[in-house]
Amino acid sequence: MEYIMKPFLNEDFLLQTKTAQRLYHEFAKEMPIIDYHNHLSPQEIAEDKQFENITQVWLYGDHYKWRAMRANGVSERYITGDASDAEKFTKWAETVPYTLRNPLYHWTHLELQRYFDIYDILNKESANSIYKQCNNLLQTPDYSVKNLLRKMNVRVLCTTDDPVDSLEFHRQIQEDGFEISVLPAFRPDKAMAVENISTFNAYVAKLEAVADVNITNFHDFITALQKRQDFFAEMGSQVSDHGLEQVYAEDYTEAEIAAIFNKILNNKDLNIEEILKFKSAMLIIFAEWDWEKGWTQQFHLGALRNNNARLLQTLGPDTGWDSIGDFSQARALSKFLDKLDQNNKLAKTILYNLNPADNELMATMVGNYNDGSVAGKVQWGSAWWFLDQKDGMEKQLNALSNMGLLSQFVGMLTDSRSFLSFPRHEYFRRVLCNLFGNDIENGELPNDIEWIGQLIQNICYNNAKDYFKFKTTTRETLSTI
Amino acid sequence: MEYIMKPFLNEDFLLQTKTAQRLYHEFAKEMPIIDYHNHLSPQEIAEDKQFENITQVWLYGDHYKWRAMRANGVSERYITGDASDAEKFTKWAETVPYTLRNPLYHWTHLELQRYFDIYDILNKESANSIYKQCNNLLQTPDYSVKNLLRKMNVRVLCTTDDPVDSLEFHRQIQEDGFEISVLPAFRPDKAMAVENISTFNAYVAKLEAVADVNITNFHDFITALQKRQDFFAEMGSQVSDHGLEQVYAEDYTEAEIAAIFNKILNNKDLNIEEILKFKSAMLIIFAEWDWEKGWTQQFHLGALRNNNARLLQTLGPDTGWDSIGDFSQARALSKFLDKLDQNNKLAKTILYNLNPADNELMATMVGNYNDGSVAGKVQWGSAWWFLDQKDGMEKQLNALSNMGLLSQFVGMLTDSRSFLSFPRHEYFRRVLCNLFGNDIENGELPNDIEWIGQLIQNICYNNAKDYFKFKTTTRETLSTI
Amino acid sequence: MEYIMKPFLNEDFLLQTKTAQRLYHEFAKEMPIIDYHNHLSPQEIAEDKQFENITQVWLYGDHYKWRAMRANGVSERYITGDASDAEKFTKWAETVPYTLRNPLYHWTHLELQRYFDIYDILNKESANSIYKQCNNLLQTPDYSVKNLLRKMNVRVLCTTDDPVDSLEFHRQIQEDGFEISVLPAFRPDKAMAVENISTFNAYVAKLEAVADVNITNFHDFITALQKRQDFFAEMGSQVSDHGLEQVYAEDYTEAEIAAIFNKILNNKDLNIEEILKFKSAMLIIFAEWDWEKGWTQQFHLGALRNNNARLLQTLGPDTGWDSIGDFSQARALSKFLDKLDQNNKLAKTILYNLNPADNELMATMVGNYNDGSVAGKVQWGSAWWFLDQKDGMEKQLNALSNMGLLSQFVGMLTDSRSFLSFPRHEYFRRVLCNLFGNDIENGELPNDIEWIGQLIQNICYNNAKDYFKFKTTTRETLSTI
Repeated sequence: MEYIMKPFLNEDFLLQTKTAQRLYHEFAKEMPIIDYHNHLSPQEIAEDKQFENITQVWLYGDHYKWRAMRANGVSERYITGDASDAEKFTKWAETVPYTLRNPLYHWTHLELQRYFDIYDILNKESANSIYKQCNNLLQTPDYSVKNLLRKMNVRVLCTTDDPVDSLEFHRQIQEDGFEISVLPAFRPDKAMAVENISTFNAYVAKLEAVADVNITNFHDFITALQKRQDFFAEMGSQVSDHGLEQVYAEDYTEAEIAAIFNKILNNKDLNIEEILKFKSAMLIIFAEWDWEKGWTQQFHLGALRNNNARLLQTLGPDTGWDSIGDFSQARALSKFLDKLDQNNKLAKTILYNLNPADNELMATMVGNYNDGSVAGKVQWGSAWWFLDQKDGMEKQLNALSNMGLLSQFVGMLTDSRSFLSFPRHEYFRRVLCNLFGNDIENGELPNDIEWIGQLIQNICYNNAKDYFKFKTTTRETLSTI
Repeated sequence: MEYIMKPFLNEDFLLQTKTAQRLYHEFAKEMPIIDYHNHLSPQEIAEDKQFENITQVWLYGDHYKWRAMRANGVSERYITGDASDAEKFTKWAETVPYTLRNPLYHWTHLELQRYFDIYDILNKESANSIYKQCNNLLQTPDYSVKNLLRKMNVRVLCTTDDPVDSLEFHRQIQEDGFEISVLPAFRPDKAMAVENISTFNAYVAKLEAVADVNITNFHDFITALQKRQDFFAEMGSQVSDHGLEQVYAEDYTEAEIAAIFNKILNNKDLNIEEILKFKSAMLIIFAEWDWEKGWTQQFHLGALRNNNARLLQTLGPDTGWDSIGDFSQARALSKFLDKLDQNNKLAKTILYNLNPADNELMATMVGNYNDGSVAGKVQWGSAWWFLDQKDGMEKQLNALSNMGLLSQFVGMLTDSRSFLSFPRHEYFRRVLCNLFGNDIENGELPNDIEWIGQLIQNICYNNAKDYFKFKTTTRETLSTI
Repeated sequence: MEYIMKPFLNEDFLLQTKTAQRLYHEFAKEMPIIDYHNHLSPQEIAEDKQFENITQVWLYGDHYKWRAMRANGVSERYITGDASDAEKFTKWAETVPYTLRNPLYHWTHLELQRYFDIYDILNKESANSIYKQCNNLLQTPDYSVKNLLRKMNVRVLCTTDDPVDSLEFHRQIQEDGFEISVLPAFRPDKAMAVENISTFNAYVAKLEAVADVNITNFHDFITALQKRQDFFAEMGSQVSDHGLEQVYAEDYTEAEIAAIFNKILNNKDLNIEEILKFKSAMLIIFAEWDWEKGWTQQFHLGALRNNNARLLQTLGPDTGWDSIGDFSQARALSKFLDKLDQNNKLAKTILYNLNPADNELMATMVGNYNDGSVAGKVQWGSAWWFLDQKDGMEKQLNALSNMGLLSQFVGMLTDSRSFLSFPRHEYFRRVLCNLFGNDIENGELPNDIEWIGQLIQNICYNNAKDYFKFKTTTRETLSTI
């Protein structure tokens, strides 16, 4: 087989065929972005934050990079410790050449190119110069958080928010008339976390305060939560999200749940059966609310979290000590979705799996609940977290293609905590166009570039626009929105 | 990498190398077909049915297409409802362009080419013209069910039949001297389905009648079933089949099973342990019969069925509400097969898994029970159902190659309900030849086209012929048969 | 796509690009070998055994070949039975053409090329001539076991040894001044195998004798084992190994374990909970010893062994009746590694999984315990057993790349019982270079051949050298060693 050496990360990056190149450059590239799930800070958007240096934006919160540095033998002092920002950047720069074939290597250089116009390779030698270039640019107005989002042609973004969150920054963003819709997402994980009664009751107390409801029984608890969900809806929220090891679908009665809640209020620990029943009940209640409001519910399934107790204690959750679990998924998912469907209360739903061994299970599970009411009503979500890389995306796109309709896919999201992560949409689009390009040139698809270009634009943007029906609070540019 | 644009679905479809093209056209293409597992209607064969239109053959029973239409937002009225056949076809034609990259897209156009000589792309614009062309042809004698089978060079086909089935249509087909062997397969799933006692006892009543055995205890039940299995054997059956979430291999005593059966006859519900013991016993009994008669037993493992209670109630089973489960498979399979092997009663066996996460488990499990008596005695079956597509086939063929002997594989089957599905054998053969072609041109196999061509012919036809030893009831063309 | 036909197994075997060819020939090829886990016989090394014929070295102990022959319908007489060596070789030669696409096909011809300079294809026709050529060479001094190892540029090899092993042959090898370090590895599987009390107590008796400790309670048992581990360390051991279905991580108290051990000494069977607690305790104890000595602990997880009771009885374990299990892995692994880490007693660790469905789980699990103390402290091991083939290696290398740092990988090992298996390192290196070559030529990596060549040399040799810190007992050529 003969290859022509391609330059690293040039304009045809990941596009192996002429057809893929056409599909990307003529159809995908210019599509706007709806980033319907991420972990960006609404406060930093509201404040239109200006970063002092690239370490702050790249290394303060990115546990992907932290894990790579730890694996490379870098001491925690240079990762989350008290080393200076410059030292931390140097350690990261020294680690980069050891991340070859890891998505970090691509993301790092893609972000340098797209945001900073830097085409050098980051390593020990280039570290200092790149650090200075980035920092200089970051301090200019063009690199404020809002301008970073504008630069990437973002139309809508959904943050991830707790029901007790005041959403004050979302309000401020809207009041300031920011033309990009920054919408909250309702993520009530803590409202189900009854494995730790004292933490849960502290949460209940917060909820009482923010919802202005005196919580003396389960009914009050639900009333308070529903007030919050109503408030989220007022603030433009159209999606909820749940991070779970697996869906809980135990049978329960209302009386049982009321009794369990009373035990909780009395600070009595629950047994495992009570915990599962309570969580099962909460999932159904949240899901029915999603259906009532026409929201989309998202389930992120299968992470095994907080595996390192020692460093969890020092650094807290989401600091790089999570990995892929092997939980049983199918039976409970089926029971849960079916129960909602039987009562005709199944909202639009997106399932994300962390273990790729569950890919085909997910790809086919979603097909059980399409009722023709909405194209792609139940979706299998984009490759998530550890799977958010070329190989993971290709596997998700291929399994979705083979077992469902890729054409109705709502596509990519960043799921990121960093304002520099938006080129991941570009990355996804390149992978997507490449798959179609190969198929066309191999004779596995007709060479109907207009139609396939249209499908690709749908997957990049139009499907998400039609599916979520986000409402804008400040402007007209998105039709329904 | 440079590509030459290949036309869509031409004579070298899926054949990426010159060597693959030679292997397919010179060796694989002309081999006859033994379709050793499908769900065709023996009645329609016996009656040599003539379809009025393409909707009847394509859309009346194909839940693959139904799922795609539902995912595309088509209302059930146009899928299984009371819309006209023409309307249903139009909705399907409109859906086809949205099935790009799904096997349906390839199957649809392959079937149009092979059966109807139509090389157009099916979509909204071409729908009407294609509908008319197909319907005109379907009404000619060349498109009777028997002629459709002849057209595809089918030698043997095995349907899937319940023990209580009269096999009257198999008898009629044989008496009519149809030169293609249409053989029944013994699928006693309902004879194990004791989770629902009333349904099961209704089944027992049918069995009593058809076997002419008064069933008052477990021994009678077995006697009646065995009479049916004897009858199936007389009618030419050489294979059994089981559709299970997982193999059941609980320990049990004969006394326990007798007692459980008495409970059933007395309409008492069983507990989970009793259900598992009963199923475990039945599997062993059926397996021993298979061994005694020299049959091949097939196990289809891992489907999670009937996930949509609402539409199951309206439409019944096998209407597109099934998906891939994540059941535990290895331990019980090992125990079951080992128990049979220890008593030297292990029949030829084919294991099919629905979850590709179990591929390697299956590929290696079968290797534990080869005793040199028959080449490939225990087989890992062809990519099944959701996996019956290029990617699924390639994964199955590659894992089988790496962990067993691809050369002894009995190959492809349609598993289909449609008389137009036989080009799936062609599809499989193209995928198979393509893998070998790539390996040869990459220097991973010697360029011994004669030997590899022979192996491919074996996988396409000869291995199945030698393995199953089907007996023809009407003619001489198959040696043993 | 245009292909140029490559000759079978030439110098550019598996190297699809010019860049891959350069990486292999200029960087990987000449690197020495550290084979840190295998099942070679120290006695045969000590005796510098000379094989009479190729059957002895290829077919006396290789259950991979046995499984292939059985699958091909060869009778056990020609595999493990009383047929002559010449007959056995003929049956193997006849089977080889049926192993196309199985790694055996590549290994067989690679070994013929590298050890015997034979470039013919092995089959029925060439069998006799190849048998004679090999046998003639095997009887020359160049083909003694030590010379076979020298020929392959082996620097260190670690056998797999039971704690009760005298290590007399390791001692003899060292005393003889063999320049290749042949080191024992501590594999205490039998010291945990309390599911069979009589076998276990027989083992305890052996341990008593070899350790010269009277074992009357759990403390004595541990004392005796620790004496053995100390002895292994004196003999140069730096690694331990465990073969387990899954890691055991039950909670237990010291008192419980002491009581369980007393039950054992009194020949009382344990219940399942006691068995799991005992195994959990032993794993922690062994792991702490590994940490105290600076060893590396290895876990081979997920085999379902001895599935064929009939032939197990005749032939014993490790004779080809094992396959891939589907055990739950994540939760217990996390609990076990975390418990050690919390006490700051987590040794360097390598996890191997047999089921590739667990690949990503493993690739991410190891990232939870990197603390910056050692680069790649917790490793995901090379593709093992059934996965030790091109496809399996590629999947492991790709998942490791995507979810960790390939650059810090300690690389390949043979895990073999055969002195002719060392070309598997070559095989691995070709696969590795090919992946990098493709990425570079596709523009997915920079064309920095010097740096990538360096990483490849690290993965081939330097990483293992730095990681294990093997100590030589006889010479200076390895720095730390």
